[in-house]
Amino acid sequence: MPELRKDPIIGRWVIIATERAKRPTDLHVPAEDSPEGGFCPFCEGNEDKTPPEILVYCKDAEHKPNTPCWSLRGVPNKFPALQIEGGLNKRGEGMFDRMNGIGAHEVIIETPQHVKFMSTLTKEQIEDSLWAYRDRILDLKKDKRFRYVLIFKNQGIAAGASLEHTNSQIIALPIVPKRVAEEIEGAKRYYAYKDRCVYCDIIRQEQEANVRVINENRDFISISPFTPRFPFETWILPKSHAAGFEDLLKEEVEQLAFMLKDTLMRIDVVLNNPPYNYLIHNSPFHNRDGDCYHWHIEIIPKLTKVAGFEWGTGFYINPTPPEETAKYLREVKI
Amino acid sequence: MPELRKDPIIGRWVIIATERAKRPTDLHVPAEDSPEGGFCPFCEGNEDKTPPEILVYCKDAEHKPNTPCWSLRGVPNKFPALQIEGGLNKRGEGMFDRMNGIGAHEVIIETPQHVKFMSTLTKEQIEDSLWAYRDRILDLKKDKRFRYVLIFKNQGIAAGASLEHTNSQIIALPIVPKRVAEEIEGAKRYYAYKDRCVYCDIIRQEQEANVRVINENRDFISISPFTPRFPFETWILPKSHAAGFEDLLKEEVEQLAFMLKDTLMRIDVVLNNPPYNYLIHNSPFHNRDGDCYHWHIEIIPKLTKVAGFEWGTGFYINPTPPEETAKYLREVKI
Repeated sequence: MPELRKDPIIGRWVIIATERAKRPTDLHVPAEDSPEGGFCPFCEGNEDKTPPEILVYCKDAEHKPNTPCWSLRGVPNKFPALQIEGGLNKRGEGMFDRMNGIGAHEVIIETPQHVKFMSTLTKEQIEDSLWAYRDRILDLKKDKRFRYVLIFKNQGIAAGASLEHTNSQIIALPIVPKRVAEEIEGAKRYYAYKDRCVYCDIIRQEQEANVRVINENRDFISISPFTPRFPFETWILPKSHAAGFEDLLKEEVEQLAFMLKDTLMRIDVVLNNPPYNYLIHNSPFHNRDGDCYHWHIEIIPKLTKVAGFEWGTGFYINPTPPEETAKYLREVKI
Repeated sequence: MPELRKDPIIGRWVIIATERAKRPTDLHVPAEDSPEGGFCPFCEGNEDKTPPEILVYCKDAEHKPNTPCWSLRGVPNKFPALQIEGGLNKRGEGMFDRMNGIGAHEVIIETPQHVKFMSTLTKEQIEDSLWAYRDRILDLKKDKRFRYVLIFKNQGIAAGASLEHTNSQIIALPIVPKRVAEEIEGAKRYYAYKDRCVYCDIIRQEQEANVRVINENRDFISISPFTPRFPFETWILPKSHAAGFEDLLKEEVEQLAFMLKDTLMRIDVVLNNPPYNYLIHNSPFHNRDGDCYHWHIEIIPKLTKVAGFEWGTGFYINPTPPEETAKYLREVKI
């Protein structure tokens, strides 16, 4: 019997189509060729093929900008979706509203080597990536035009990557994204009703039931959520309530790096290096609404096609129950 | 300068990335092979390869069910996402809510011939498809478990089709989909503020500006909306306010069939038979909220990949301004 499940945060329903349940091998996606045809502007030695760096990690204190010998670089996106210079110039056209597409669009290059899969980076490299995310958030926060920073990764061509060299993207926006605003609204509603954080309650219930938990360490837990939109959707949450990613303590960064590498390795082994997106759902800069939001990471493998039903309803049909995906991911040898 | 535009109905922002504007030929998607390997269960003569028909159009009054000589068939989906038999059995599990996945999942086979592209059906065949949609809505409305019927088409493998023989899908749901509920909320908010329908106002403004209009006839208008999520997203709306698709008059069905064929032909010529989804956004069965909603069809060519930014924000980056897509679609010779 297929099942309809309601997301406890935003109220979205998903159909868990148990009759069509799929094993991981049914979901393997064939690898796609790299689109760049051999040359990679993100590899060490090609620093002049990207815009000048805005962030660089390097052991050598005398390091000259935009030269080799770095361990991590942050650069503006060469083809930005938004433009950094200028004012918003909000205006109307009859009933329509528009403003200039002002924002930051940056890339974090997580390694000088041509590494395709983030899960194969060392724990130290992943820690550095997390520090770089934080550095950029703190810097972009100073710009009064921006209200939100989205950090995400497109891994694999099918997930929207245009280069195969592993990298993350950072977009600063003058508005709070719809999806995050909905989650914050939901968390506020729950808080008003229960006087508790909905994410904290989910973590507690998942730990007790222990069927959708994949792994946990001192500070973080990885789960298959109760209402996954997609097969093998996986969340990583801080176990203690925390509104802002950028407030992570040093030891928490280490714990998170372990958990992120652990989770991506499990996904890569079970699903044979699938294309995926991961997204950091963070609080907006201002107006944190009593800090009732709980930041977290969502990892979405791209294994199925989004079709008319999903676009027409905003609901999702998922052929793989999260209880099964959690079992596969928990039990795999990595 | 890229532009941020706000959807006047649900308040979602899209980024129109004018700097990266793409011509239609940049967006052509290579045709994918048919997944069915030669045999088609939807072709005339293979009636026993589908579940028994629940609707058939045929000139012969003596026609025996599930035999050749039909012009249109409606059958249950062989691999339904929802199950038709049973009760909802709504229940909780701690803080989580679920119910049985009860619903109808049907297929309308629009022609006995192995036609791949709906735009090549005759106007009469498209009229019949619209009548079949209406027949099924009216029948499913009698089932008190259901609150909404979604009608949609997945054309092409990349748009989620599993067979290439043109067909539409019908899904009846025990809940109102999130996306439709948001539009109805938005329309109610606008009505409360202006005492007018937001879609009627959009049509009026588009007719006056006349830059995003593609075509119109007596009863229908096709436009590139002000805030398209995707390149070449196209809407068809009834020009007079109407809450329910199923209330179409006979002459309006003819007018709509013309406009649907006209629009799909324009899309197929400009974009070289792209994969697409179309969706009928209709009112829910009950609780029509003073009929402030305005039903319409959304056509979404699948030309770009949805990546991390879109999943993380619920916003969209669209590299093609609707003013340009409307011009291409308006001026193309069909």
